[in-house]
Amino acid sequence: MAKHWSRPATEALQADGLRITDLDTSATPGFKGDKKAGKELLAERTQVLSDLQEKLYANGRSGDSRSVLLVLQGMDTAGKGGIVRHVIGSVDPQGVDHAAFGVPTEEEKRHHYLWRIRKQLPRGGQLGVFDRSHYEDVLVVRVHELVPQKEWEPRYDEINAFERELVDEGTTLIKVAMFVSLDEQKRRLRERLERPDKYWKFNPGDIDERAYWPAYQEAYQAMLDRTSTKYAPWYVLPSDNKWFSRLAITELLVDALETLQLDWPPAKFDVTEQLRRLDTA
Amino acid sequence: MAKHWSRPATEALQADGLRITDLDTSATPGFKGDKKAGKELLAERTQVLSDLQEKLYANGRSGDSRSVLLVLQGMDTAGKGGIVRHVIGSVDPQGVDHAAFGVPTEEEKRHHYLWRIRKQLPRGGQLGVFDRSHYEDVLVVRVHELVPQKEWEPRYDEINAFERELVDEGTTLIKVAMFVSLDEQKRRLRERLERPDKYWKFNPGDIDERAYWPAYQEAYQAMLDRTSTKYAPWYVLPSDNKWFSRLAITELLVDALETLQLDWPPAKFDVTEQLRRLDTA
Repeated sequence: MAKHWSRPATEALQADGLRITDLDTSATPGFKGDKKAGKELLAERTQVLSDLQEKLYANGRSGDSRSVLLVLQGMDTAGKGGIVRHVIGSVDPQGVDHAAFGVPTEEEKRHHYLWRIRKQLPRGGQLGVFDRSHYEDVLVVRVHELVPQKEWEPRYDEINAFERELVDEGTTLIKVAMFVSLDEQKRRLRERLERPDKYWKFNPGDIDERAYWPAYQEAYQAMLDRTSTKYAPWYVLPSDNKWFSRLAITELLVDALETLQLDWPPAKFDVTEQLRRLDTA
Repeated sequence: MAKHWSRPATEALQADGLRITDLDTSATPGFKGDKKAGKELLAERTQVLSDLQEKLYANGRSGDSRSVLLVLQGMDTAGKGGIVRHVIGSVDPQGVDHAAFGVPTEEEKRHHYLWRIRKQLPRGGQLGVFDRSHYEDVLVVRVHELVPQKEWEPRYDEINAFERELVDEGTTLIKVAMFVSLDEQKRRLRERLERPDKYWKFNPGDIDERAYWPAYQEAYQAMLDRTSTKYAPWYVLPSDNKWFSRLAITELLVDALETLQLDWPPAKFDVTEQLRRLDTA
């Protein structure tokens, strides 16, 4: 366990039994250091993550079918994009499969909601990251009744079965729900309106969504209660502090990669013989 | 133009009239600084690149269909992967479309050689990077006569037409051919055989390919002579010095992005009105 942590992020951020409405989104569960300590530690742990990711990639190139998939969910401004940019951005792009899931296209709408998801699953050796995911189909879809309840209701079980399948195929799922407070969201939206270099991140619809906050909280709670499984647990991340979000997700990724007990793939050739061949080539 | 350069990389690395057999692969054309100066400059220019890439991405998110595509070609160990890791790795993964083209799969073989390429073209706002590309179909394919000459011969014109189409659609192509000397390649292959953490990068076939060096030089020369066009020129990069490769490609990317004259996308909404709405939301 990295320093300043009183318990691992995998424990401190567990979703089990947690009520979202009670969540302190400015907290830093499990971490005793301050922002400065957090940033210093992040720099260290980023290197650890980068080294582990290279091993995952190396094994993938050598035929290992295992992969890691980070699933990010959260309301607008929760910081999903920042995680991709700053945490995923610290590892080799060759080993990253990134996908963002927005409003489904016309083509996607004609298919099962898992169709577009399956197309973007990480290949062996890859670190996948989903910025939003199949969970949109029990979040925004539920909140806005985009399909009737009898259609979204079975999806929780279906998603559990889908993820069971992924895990059985060798994918480690790290599901993180990021939460900011309504006030913090307002601050972040205001920043997007006050800085011309951030206008492009703003959508007037983001303000409309604020009226649905309680409905979203309910939908998120149901998601946590019904799809946090032993094989694919949810982590709940208080996200008012960006430095903590980045540090905590780095720790979750490091933990997942360490659990795979990766080593450098052994040579599939006779090293001495190849060295001899090379000498005269 | 960045400091220490006597002329821009876009000029210094021009392929026109260049004979590969005369190339000094340890040279640093256009750059007068040493390794230390190069590394310092790279740190600075990386930040410039990252800022420009964010603007490209922002514009893409706002409907701009323009994109940038870096095409990397080079023999084994020339450093293509290092460019992806260190140069492309310095920008936001959300804005990167990375594709590596290896030996075609069975499915790919059943299609036209451009089929798999078209599937991986960067979307608007994205920085695409091809680690190998459609040029394999006039390089390894020509050297090993994987198809008869009457089949690969028309590909040069076909590729020019294909790239003309990409450029007309708003893609800026940056095609870089990376060259190391036979000796430098031997050193790099030996390192892969001497370090267990690099075994996975080694393939005994890489040694066999060394015997085809003159044939590859011929195929690369034909590629440069026949597919370096005004709208999609080739750059020839002496690649024995990794620091120079990274710096030079960073400069080529910065130049391409600057040429697009990107600005932050304007607001598509009334900022004052949205600020007022936000206040009460």
